Amino acid sequence: LSPVRAGATPPPDTPIAEVGEQALLALLHRYCNPNRIGDDGAIVTPRAGYDLVIATDGLVQDVHFSEATTPAEAVGWRAAAVNLSDLAAMGATPIGLTLALSLPGTLPWQWLEGFYNGMVACLATYGGEILGGDLSRSPILTLGVTALGEVHPTQALRRSVAQPGDRILVTGWHGASRAGLEWLLNPDWGRDVPSTIQREWVNAHQRPRPRFDVVNALHKLGGLSLRVAAMDSSDGLADAILQLCRASGVGANIWGDRIPIHPGLRQTQSLTLEQALDWTLYGGEDFELVLCLPAQLAEALLTGLSEGGLESGAAIIGEITVEPDVLLEWHSQQIPLTLSRGFQHWSAPDADRGSQ
Amino acid sequence: LSPVRAGATPPPDTPIAEVGEQALLALLHRYCNPNRIGDDGAIVTPRAGYDLVIATDGLVQDVHFSEATTPAEAVGWRAAAVNLSDLAAMGATPIGLTLALSLPGTLPWQWLEGFYNGMVACLATYGGEILGGDLSRSPILTLGVTALGEVHPTQALRRSVAQPGDRILVTGWHGASRAGLEWLLNPDWGRDVPSTIQREWVNAHQRPRPRFDVVNALHKLGGLSLRVAAMDSSDGLADAILQLCRASGVGANIWGDRIPIHPGLRQTQSLTLEQALDWTLYGGEDFELVLCLPAQLAEALLTGLSEGGLESGAAIIGEITVEPDVLLEWHSQQIPLTLSRGFQHWSAPDADRGSQ
Repeated sequence: LSPVRAGATPPPDTPIAEVGEQALLALLHRYCNPNRIGDDGAIVTPRAGYDLVIATDGLVQDVHFSEATTPAEAVGWRAAAVNLSDLAAMGATPIGLTLALSLPGTLPWQWLEGFYNGMVACLATYGGEILGGDLSRSPILTLGVTALGEVHPTQALRRSVAQPGDRILVTGWHGASRAGLEWLLNPDWGRDVPSTIQREWVNAHQRPRPRFDVVNALHKLGGLSLRVAAMDSSDGLADAILQLCRASGVGANIWGDRIPIHPGLRQTQSLTLEQALDWTLYGGEDFELVLCLPAQLAEALLTGLSEGGLESGAAIIGEITVEPDVLLEWHSQQIPLTLSRGFQHWSAPDADRGSQ
Repeated sequence: LSPVRAGATPPPDTPIAEVGEQALLALLHRYCNPNRIGDDGAIVTPRAGYDLVIATDGLVQDVHFSEATTPAEAVGWRAAAVNLSDLAAMGATPIGLTLALSLPGTLPWQWLEGFYNGMVACLATYGGEILGGDLSRSPILTLGVTALGEVHPTQALRRSVAQPGDRILVTGWHGASRAGLEWLLNPDWGRDVPSTIQREWVNAHQRPRPRFDVVNALHKLGGLSLRVAAMDSSDGLADAILQLCRASGVGANIWGDRIPIHPGLRQTQSLTLEQALDWTLYGGEDFELVLCLPAQLAEALLTGLSEGGLESGAAIIGEITVEPDVLLEWHSQQIPLTLSRGFQHWSAPDADRGSQ
């Protein structure tokens, strides 16, 4: 087998082992800024007076994504988006990301091309570029992605600054990504909802949106002097609330009737209302922001987020309390939220949950 | 099986799946600066006027390391060192690193503890701290490590600035890591050399040293106004020379009789002199620096590096030429160096090469 010449695009189904490492690197460099690559590391010049934010996430085939649910472009988009979402949760704007790719030699070139196209599309939408990477062979496909962003020191969002009386605001629907995963694995499920909603679910799962628009809205509202606790809801809405409370040494009352349940989840006969609420709280991977902030600011932010349409799923769903319990008020019951129903690596059976 | 209480150290052989994710995170946070962790990302305040350098490397079990050759502590040390070495090759000093760990649930806690101990030992030696991480389950152990450093803009080392007439300087022995790997896989090999040399080989393989001492020596020699092309020799000495020449649009004459061949490789009956030279040029993973710099500066740097003892393996081994060929002068022959004999992922059979 003769190695593909550097610069020539190989036939789509060529296994990357046959492309060869040097030719592969040359092909992938097309997706990179030539000023950033070609050295042992990439040089980044930070904006004067700004801090840097760094966040990392690993993605493993058949754990975080699978061929059945996530085409290559969507894996690339997601790999970028989940890391950018961590930057948004810190109030930062993106500079770029690095990629440590561990790939089987049998992987078709087409997959890698699709992956890079998806990643670059996400970066083009939200900002940032590929700052460098590393290729290794591996029996299974594993991606280590690290995102780098910048934030003004007074605008950084942290988990630990929530105070009693703060309102808890979610920036969009929860449970939609979980529904998208279910529908992709089992198209008979949720067949009683319109295809527009099914597409919305699939998009929520395959092409999550890091919420930099929320970061910008906060900057407009408060300039440099906001106290906002934040994290993203990658591990589920309940998990985010619990982590924020734990980090801030507070508790919360969650108003069950204010939690937006996605219209499709209410509509489908495949779920009871309780199941729909369960997916909303524990589904995970919606990559919305969960914010704790003073009531007046919460109302102002909500108004801003709802301007794009009432169907955004943004809502104020509860308030921070002095008492350390995190309680869901649901039909006059008070139900403690628990971490343990959120996704736990190594304890969730594969069949139960296709991705993180 | 009851999950281990957060804060309690589990018995060493406990599979991490039984420790549970929350307890595991709490245990691993002991290795981190509490000011850096607990949010979606870590905040880093860059030194005023300095640029940042970011570099990433993936490590895959049974590709880059194996139980037979690399205990957990050494994997941790190596994972930090290979990434810090990229910073050294850029002339940068370390800030810290992030870790995306993909781990099988059956992995004993003891391994992870050893890994973190090794990583923290390396960071304590060379600088930097753990800036954040991510845990995923995976059928095989994969590590995505990203190092962050800082460099004054005028002191950054690049690959592309070599000029004809520059001397090529290597900062230490090559081939020793390759010998260490061979000896670990096959203790009968190289049994005719003293155990001190065998230990040196194993150390070269298991505990490579990023050459920040060389970066400091360069700063002392030239302050802010040096032109030095550099990269590390992670993929082999020949590969480094070829990459530097390619990036700078130049060629090189390598003086075969000036290439330091490790005394143990000369001494053992297990290798001919030609095989010893081959390992020196193509063995890989020595993580020395290969520098192209004006002759006078090269001599001054070499003097500085040799002060610690003549046995450092540092040497001036050739010069940069206008002609683009990279030729090894060996016993009145001129032999072109080739990339293809260096390690190529997906083309090197596992048995031939245990690691990158």
